[in-house]
Amino acid sequence: MRAALTLAARGLGRVAPNPAVGCVLVRAGHVVGRGWTQPGGRPHAEREALYRAGVAARGATAYVTLEPCSHHGATPPCADALVEAGIARVVAAMVDPDTRVAGRGIARLRAAGIAVETGLLEREARRLNLGFILNRTAGRPLVTLKLATTLDGRIATAVGESQWITGPAAREAAHQIRADHDAIAVGIGTALSDDPSLTVRLPGDPGPAPLRVVFDSRGRLGADAKLADGAVPSLVLVGEGVGAPTGIGGASVAPVARGGDGRIDPVAALTLLAERGVTRLMVEGGGTLAAGLLSAGLVDRIAWFRAGGVIGGDGLAAVGPMGLAALSDMRRFTLAETRPVGADVMELWERPIALDAVAAV
Amino acid sequence: MRAALTLAARGLGRVAPNPAVGCVLVRAGHVVGRGWTQPGGRPHAEREALYRAGVAARGATAYVTLEPCSHHGATPPCADALVEAGIARVVAAMVDPDTRVAGRGIARLRAAGIAVETGLLEREARRLNLGFILNRTAGRPLVTLKLATTLDGRIATAVGESQWITGPAAREAAHQIRADHDAIAVGIGTALSDDPSLTVRLPGDPGPAPLRVVFDSRGRLGADAKLADGAVPSLVLVGEGVGAPTGIGGASVAPVARGGDGRIDPVAALTLLAERGVTRLMVEGGGTLAAGLLSAGLVDRIAWFRAGGVIGGDGLAAVGPMGLAALSDMRRFTLAETRPVGADVMELWERPIALDAVAAV
Repeated sequence: MRAALTLAARGLGRVAPNPAVGCVLVRAGHVVGRGWTQPGGRPHAEREALYRAGVAARGATAYVTLEPCSHHGATPPCADALVEAGIARVVAAMVDPDTRVAGRGIARLRAAGIAVETGLLEREARRLNLGFILNRTAGRPLVTLKLATTLDGRIATAVGESQWITGPAAREAAHQIRADHDAIAVGIGTALSDDPSLTVRLPGDPGPAPLRVVFDSRGRLGADAKLADGAVPSLVLVGEGVGAPTGIGGASVAPVARGGDGRIDPVAALTLLAERGVTRLMVEGGGTLAAGLLSAGLVDRIAWFRAGGVIGGDGLAAVGPMGLAALSDMRRFTLAETRPVGADVMELWERPIALDAVAAV
Repeated sequence: MRAALTLAARGLGRVAPNPAVGCVLVRAGHVVGRGWTQPGGRPHAEREALYRAGVAARGATAYVTLEPCSHHGATPPCADALVEAGIARVVAAMVDPDTRVAGRGIARLRAAGIAVETGLLEREARRLNLGFILNRTAGRPLVTLKLATTLDGRIATAVGESQWITGPAAREAAHQIRADHDAIAVGIGTALSDDPSLTVRLPGDPGPAPLRVVFDSRGRLGADAKLADGAVPSLVLVGEGVGAPTGIGGASVAPVARGGDGRIDPVAALTLLAERGVTRLMVEGGGTLAAGLLSAGLVDRIAWFRAGGVIGGDGLAAVGPMGLAALSDMRRFTLAETRPVGADVMELWERPIALDAVAAV
């Protein structure tokens, strides 16, 4: 199952709105087939593994990170394919939270006489597909906030110099994080000041490119912005009642409800993105968008790149004002991973409640 | 030698102005004596080890983390004691940078027919005794800045709530850091707002208590401050030409030159502390003192405790304004250690140049 989870991870950021699934077929102690959900979402992992195994699949055990699908979508259900191939036993890490499946895949397998077990490495599987689970059960994507700061949490000096706080290795690692998300978002302030392209620039990246998203409550994105160049799909979220920016033919525009502060309502924005199939959203700043999502409790993970320097209190803060009064109201994250990246350090902080909450799905 | 270094570390914060030394005596493959510099600075490590070995020291090899002393201080020189005990060979990690020794101890041993080698684990030994080395060669103590912040470097919410950002395990770890320093400093802002006692509160701590130091440029410390209670020695650094605070009979007062900003000149303050025998200074804030020392390039290590939460840009920053314009002027630190402490994370960042510079001594 660990091998199946590793295979599944290859699909993160490439298979939405589908889940990233891995499948390993084992017969008589030997692996006879391996598969993972392919870019774009099909073929599914089970079909890939069955294709590779051929007749060797007969009598094998299928280790699969998610309950096989039972509904007819663009392809016939995987449960049927496993039955037809003569699989003897299926071990699924977790039941599919999608209401179109939700145990029906397992029932279908059992009805055909296949032994089915669930729950092996279930927590790891839930962690891997948290974006898919949140999309299906909470109607929002997983949100990863990426920050690149000094030790004291600054992203620019007092006079605005910001390139580069972290080194080239950290920037490449950030591109790897982009690649395993379905969409990359920035606030309009960052879009205007940095003119980012938000593309994945990694050698050999199989794509598809993540959707580029701008939180642009007042419709200020300029026609000459890289985000409107049409090279990769972009979606500009504009406040309801605000006219769309003009001349950004390379980007789609969607109106979104605004909060009392005039800014785009983060819940409404995430709901819209989930409906459009986004399961994993990476947010790259700026400080206002980061503060808004953090305050609303919508950040599931923080990927924090830190350079070993201090700018001081007159530097620009990575997270804007949050209006937090009591420390007891501060949302807590736990450290899931830390590693050196060149001269910098990368930390992955996770909101513990996210995994616990979905464990009850 | 590794065992000797571990023994030596027991003396950090307890032996100033002496170096913290460790000594292991080995004869025929067996350890026959171990010693480390005792609290207050005497007896020295070699004498402790010789005392424990007794006649077994004859013909033994002495592994010692610093060149044995050759000068008559309060006790006869250790080099003589090693000769008298019949030690056959001495392996010293490094030469003593103290001009009163500086190779004379080694010469004395060699003159008595003892084989002497130096340089084994020299870098580790320099790191251990960096405070002693800086005191003797640069006329200032090692400076460890200790911070306890959120992930975004905040020490209080917008309305000033600051207790507690980090948890009890982090606070106990901070007391352990206090215990291996000779002096603990705060700025007057922190002294007035938090009224800290700056004592080491650990069960079984052998002392002596670190000197408590207040950077009080305008002489504002109050008579009722815990730092003036006389329970443990305190030193109030007051700006030259400023009257000493009144009624603080429990504390000593020393005038120190001020900089153009009216604040105490950090170099002058550290010089004074070094002259008074401080080899390891821990600075616990606040943000103004931290920024002043960082800007002056006087921070050798940062012990950074971080809680897994974010307060946002309207919270109080741990490091005050530094007036840094160009990122290329930002001083860099490298991560020497990171570990979980309860729900928090402790990181030790070191200024690489500090070790490299003293390697040339």
